[in-house]
Amino acid sequence: MTDAPRATSKTNPGRFFEDYTVGEVIRHGVPRTVGSGERALYHALYPARHALHSSDLFAQACGLGAAPLDDLLAFHVVFGKTVPDVSLNARANLGYAEGLWRRPARPGDTLRSESEVIGLKQNSNGKTGVVWVRTRGLDQNDAVVIEYVRWVMVKKRDEGSPAPETVVPALKGALAPSDLAVPPELTFADYDFSLAGEPHRLGDYQVGEIIDHVDGVTLEEAEHMMATRLWQNTSKTHFDGTMREDGKRLIYGGHVISMARALSFNGLANAQMIVGLNGGAHANPAFSGDTVRAWSEVLDTAETDRPGVGAIRLRLVATKDGSVGDLKGDDGKYLPGVLLDLDYWALMPV
Amino acid sequence: MTDAPRATSKTNPGRFFEDYTVGEVIRHGVPRTVGSGERALYHALYPARHALHSSDLFAQACGLGAAPLDDLLAFHVVFGKTVPDVSLNARANLGYAEGLWRRPARPGDTLRSESEVIGLKQNSNGKTGVVWVRTRGLDQNDAVVIEYVRWVMVKKRDEGSPAPETVVPALKGALAPSDLAVPPELTFADYDFSLAGEPHRLGDYQVGEIIDHVDGVTLEEAEHMMATRLWQNTSKTHFDGTMREDGKRLIYGGHVISMARALSFNGLANAQMIVGLNGGAHANPAFSGDTVRAWSEVLDTAETDRPGVGAIRLRLVATKDGSVGDLKGDDGKYLPGVLLDLDYWALMPV
Amino acid sequence: MTDAPRATSKTNPGRFFEDYTVGEVIRHGVPRTVGSGERALYHALYPARHALHSSDLFAQACGLGAAPLDDLLAFHVVFGKTVPDVSLNARANLGYAEGLWRRPARPGDTLRSESEVIGLKQNSNGKTGVVWVRTRGLDQNDAVVIEYVRWVMVKKRDEGSPAPETVVPALKGALAPSDLAVPPELTFADYDFSLAGEPHRLGDYQVGEIIDHVDGVTLEEAEHMMATRLWQNTSKTHFDGTMREDGKRLIYGGHVISMARALSFNGLANAQMIVGLNGGAHANPAFSGDTVRAWSEVLDTAETDRPGVGAIRLRLVATKDGSVGDLKGDDGKYLPGVLLDLDYWALMPV
Repeated sequence: MTDAPRATSKTNPGRFFEDYTVGEVIRHGVPRTVGSGERALYHALYPARHALHSSDLFAQACGLGAAPLDDLLAFHVVFGKTVPDVSLNARANLGYAEGLWRRPARPGDTLRSESEVIGLKQNSNGKTGVVWVRTRGLDQNDAVVIEYVRWVMVKKRDEGSPAPETVVPALKGALAPSDLAVPPELTFADYDFSLAGEPHRLGDYQVGEIIDHVDGVTLEEAEHMMATRLWQNTSKTHFDGTMREDGKRLIYGGHVISMARALSFNGLANAQMIVGLNGGAHANPAFSGDTVRAWSEVLDTAETDRPGVGAIRLRLVATKDGSVGDLKGDDGKYLPGVLLDLDYWALMPV
Repeated sequence: MTDAPRATSKTNPGRFFEDYTVGEVIRHGVPRTVGSGERALYHALYPARHALHSSDLFAQACGLGAAPLDDLLAFHVVFGKTVPDVSLNARANLGYAEGLWRRPARPGDTLRSESEVIGLKQNSNGKTGVVWVRTRGLDQNDAVVIEYVRWVMVKKRDEGSPAPETVVPALKGALAPSDLAVPPELTFADYDFSLAGEPHRLGDYQVGEIIDHVDGVTLEEAEHMMATRLWQNTSKTHFDGTMREDGKRLIYGGHVISMARALSFNGLANAQMIVGLNGGAHANPAFSGDTVRAWSEVLDTAETDRPGVGAIRLRLVATKDGSVGDLKGDDGKYLPGVLLDLDYWALMPV
Repeated sequence: MTDAPRATSKTNPGRFFEDYTVGEVIRHGVPRTVGSGERALYHALYPARHALHSSDLFAQACGLGAAPLDDLLAFHVVFGKTVPDVSLNARANLGYAEGLWRRPARPGDTLRSESEVIGLKQNSNGKTGVVWVRTRGLDQNDAVVIEYVRWVMVKKRDEGSPAPETVVPALKGALAPSDLAVPPELTFADYDFSLAGEPHRLGDYQVGEIIDHVDGVTLEEAEHMMATRLWQNTSKTHFDGTMREDGKRLIYGGHVISMARALSFNGLANAQMIVGLNGGAHANPAFSGDTVRAWSEVLDTAETDRPGVGAIRLRLVATKDGSVGDLKGDDGKYLPGVLLDLDYWALMPV
């Protein structure tokens, strides 16, 4: 077919730095109804065992109706929808802040995402800029399920285009306990520690304490690709083995987050619900064959106004070398064995 | 156990060419109730993002109730049931024609399959023959969900057995727009292009236009086997690594169809529903490690009698070499990098 | 962080031999609501095709409501919950007995597990002991869904600790047909053999008959890990590729059980429900790359009091070398190509 018409360009080229304006709200495509199928896959892809997300009865005993979907499942679905509009020309995922789970996602909910551009800053090299967005995941009633701020480094389409006015949003370094959205119906007053799988309550954890979660999981291409597709994340580096000489695909950072969080059950089984994301860094890339392990550091604890419900602030670190407690070198950079450094709030019985 | 009784032959040996009679209707075994679990797996195995199959709300806004299952999911389930009766002794899958999606499959439907033998022709070598079947997928009310014609080359049990009377069915080279079963309740009158993920409507596509879908997915053994099992397709070449020296398994052609269709979202996000299959060829086998890409050619467009609903006829080509627009060599044979050449009708907002 | 606090030990170290007392009932953690997602995954991970577990309509025609979940799916969920309390320091899984499926598990059921310690015997080396437990899987109404006895060899924490009183439970070598819990509503009076996929009824099988199930499936790391995680089985040998030089993970024995049972459809399509587990041995370990095949031997047949429902006792053998009929060598040990030797009762139309 030498006379074939030239291919046209109806595919999505992604946005460049020039395409963002502070205050703009981007409505992301492809809403998704999530259900028991997604839950089962989440439990097949990660060793997730928190009882509140595993058992309808346990969730009912905690004041919730049916078991909500895993908190990170909802996060990944919301995040995935932003990729075609935010990540395609991104060079780096720079950070997260002010992540709030406002209501548990339940089977049958339909989630969609919107992102408001809240900051822009061109880099001094004139080739890239930083874009801050506040993304909101909305359910079928337009109620916010999750929101978070993310900032990414994005390529400019044209290096000669003028720099926009610099707007750097003021972001909280960490959420205060009072910022957290504890579900009003939640109670841990009749919490069954034996069914939950561990006896440790909030009072058993000390600020500064480090927990080695011991277990390791070796990553597989088929698994991380299935996970990433399930979130309808289209970033081609996760799927296309021709982009690297060794044929490996760069693993979606969220896969490591979910793997580490699930591994942290062993020692933190009662940190049932993630309600706040203070910050996070994908310290080094992960590839198939890496064996992920995790450790946590207790950063803070707090009370809430719900019966028996406390909050614990945790640093969750994923590694590929089994190290525990070491994070950065003398140069202030993450050690090469560290994959993830995440700072979050979870709810736990007091 | 040298005195073990000899193994008996209760396993299914499959049908040979002599076992088919024109006019016979074969009732295939193993009906299947499909649900949200199958949907989630479909979205984990393929980068499927068409909003009509992803969101109950989007489907409702299009006049449908809950989101129907992906059209190819229903096809694979119906097809899979025919394998024990049609494919076990097949040497080649020669073609498809007159494929019609008569009603969307929904979570909770129970699908079964029947195949009517509509043609027979012994090959001149006396060793094989061609069998044409019209397969119908039926739901719990015996309503036809899908039907299609497929023809395969099947081994004879006994080369000396007499040839049957040759019956070659008259098949349409392509379905006319008036043949298509557009769901009577469907409307694209209030279609939300931003939620669908792309702005292109039927009028934006030109006959002859070629769309490079850009993205690539590298195939994995675990993924294609999970998909093929999910359709209860039992063809041993897809699962048994001892059949080839390199241990690779021949990938079910339908896995490539679904992968290519899902990749075609990028450029054809609004080609929401597949309603007709005009023809198709599995040009070359696919194996794990191959990176599938896809391009489409617009073959025709048409109106329908439903509000805002048009039809687009597309050639969907999957490749393993990233070529775009090239299909066959000077010898008329498919180029070695081409995996699939599929001709189908989809519904799209006008 | 050279000044990091030392890691604390909130992770589960598992029980040692000294930690078991005859008569104690261990309530295992992490109840699980199972649904259509788990069912779909089961059908993606194993070539499971028994119609009773595939089609709501077929199940209804057999007197059941919706299709129950696959019997082994329920078994794996119940078994998985026992791992943190029974298997973490186990050196060997020695046997199964008196396994009874008391009621079919259905989508929406919430399963939890309890294990009663029914036997203890310290080994003569003083380093290990044998622990017998009777595990019960309970649903949301505390009704027993499954029960079975398992015994494992467990390490002692302290070799010098005194031996407990030896208690060896009296276990049945095989369940009698009258022990089986045939669902009271079950009927095969109107059984549709063509939909079931094979014509063979109980009367067609002879005691001593061996059936070669023919098909083979090559195992993949991603698949067995997804399966094992789905059952929330946390045994690290199944996930951590650093535990062996070749990076392979020891495959959960239950994965081989389910694979062999699913392969046995070809020749035993009408052995619809597993209702009894007489015994079983994981003869040799399985690893990714092994190609599993299966054969069955008919050990017994019996009537039941339900219309048209008979029982068949089968030996199910999984191999990695394709051998059929050979089980043990002259030394009485399992041949190296044998993976599994399972003895079970299933229900089949007479």
